[in-house]
Amino acid sequence: MPSIGHPLAYHDAGTPLTGVLYRGEAEQQTRPGILLIHGGAGLDDHARDQAQRWAALGYVVLACDMYGDGVAGDRQRIMSCVTALRDDPATLVTRARAGLDALRDCPDTDGRFAAVGFCFGGMAALTLARSGEGIAGAVSIHGSLTTPAPAQPHTVRAKILACHGASDPHVPPADVTAFTQEMEDARADWQLIMYGGALHGFTHRHTQPGATPGVAYDERADRRSFATASQFLAEAFTEQTA
Amino acid sequence: MPSIGHPLAYHDAGTPLTGVLYRGEAEQQTRPGILLIHGGAGLDDHARDQAQRWAALGYVVLACDMYGDGVAGDRQRIMSCVTALRDDPATLVTRARAGLDALRDCPDTDGRFAAVGFCFGGMAALTLARSGEGIAGAVSIHGSLTTPAPAQPHTVRAKILACHGASDPHVPPADVTAFTQEMEDARADWQLIMYGGALHGFTHRHTQPGATPGVAYDERADRRSFATASQFLAEAFTEQTA
Repeated sequence: MPSIGHPLAYHDAGTPLTGVLYRGEAEQQTRPGILLIHGGAGLDDHARDQAQRWAALGYVVLACDMYGDGVAGDRQRIMSCVTALRDDPATLVTRARAGLDALRDCPDTDGRFAAVGFCFGGMAALTLARSGEGIAGAVSIHGSLTTPAPAQPHTVRAKILACHGASDPHVPPADVTAFTQEMEDARADWQLIMYGGALHGFTHRHTQPGATPGVAYDERADRRSFATASQFLAEAFTEQTA
Repeated sequence: MPSIGHPLAYHDAGTPLTGVLYRGEAEQQTRPGILLIHGGAGLDDHARDQAQRWAALGYVVLACDMYGDGVAGDRQRIMSCVTALRDDPATLVTRARAGLDALRDCPDTDGRFAAVGFCFGGMAALTLARSGEGIAGAVSIHGSLTTPAPAQPHTVRAKILACHGASDPHVPPADVTAFTQEMEDARADWQLIMYGGALHGFTHRHTQPGATPGVAYDERADRRSFATASQFLAEAFTEQTA
């Protein structure tokens, strides 16, 4: 049975934010928490669907809000919000941390956290990891791999998984190579998986084919990336306890 | 309990070959078969260990022999054998097919097959897939990704998984990019996973650190690649039935 989400109001300094919390069902009283970070469009049906998917595995999931009120649905405001956060990693990290803090305040989380993000949210999850945040794992799904602030050696504490569509025109091979080099130089514990034939946004089930250039749903890559990320987070959470 | 292997004599035209067959234990009378292809050194303890690992999952596994008698242990003969097979994909495919035929003759295989190879064997598994062989899956683990005979569009029938050490100096980033392009052009169903920090030969548990430049055991990449490949083959075999 899909978990029903509940609005969760929190804030980043002066910016009010409203996420959706999914508790799922689990035998354990407390469980790891997942910060689920939406794509460029903001906290939408896609983000809520993905949050439910993770909650169904027994995690406490906060589909967080990176933009604040009055942005989602307004193309111009979204663009200015995305650009501001992308170009200023410190602000992006603070915004994501506000979500983590809200999740930490949920009495059914057990002190172990991870971030899972899509497109813009994948970049946000990686940026959080690059900042040295002590989460167990950071997962980027069809996210941007470039950054104005590359990870420094031995600062990344989260395990990293990037799930990448091999034919994603928004994240070309040169970006993959640069990310690989960045992660190796940083001595991070990282993995990157490429899905043949997949374009950008391959988890977006309701995408109209051809509506956005370079974006298409790919059932195989969607299913496989969820399986790989599930296995990845199970390992990351287990090792954080140990 | 580890499966005990039994020698299996077979041949490729005039070349006598001796593999080791592992049946494992399983509830089903018949099961998928895995052709396990050794690395450059020939059918050695590493190949036997890996075959046992797969047999423990319930598969029928043939640790095949790609060289024939009197080659393993003799560096010069190995080099000439590897070079001859690498430069002549048709001969490499015929040699690997001889192993598949031997596996097909085992009464406890169920008609579904896959190839899993390491280093040289990874290249052999990919070459078999490039040839259009109707196996369910081909897995290359720290294998060479280049080929003198790239896959042609719509000829690859096997699902492909390449597990790659991100810092493998024997398979540099340019080879990964070329492989990506080859597989995309061929419209293959393929995935490639990179393991951060891993060098060449990352499954070789008994490697002496520093003994061979660019080669090192990596416990994490070893464990993760086995988990990823297991999940991959489970999916590939399931879809071949359907």
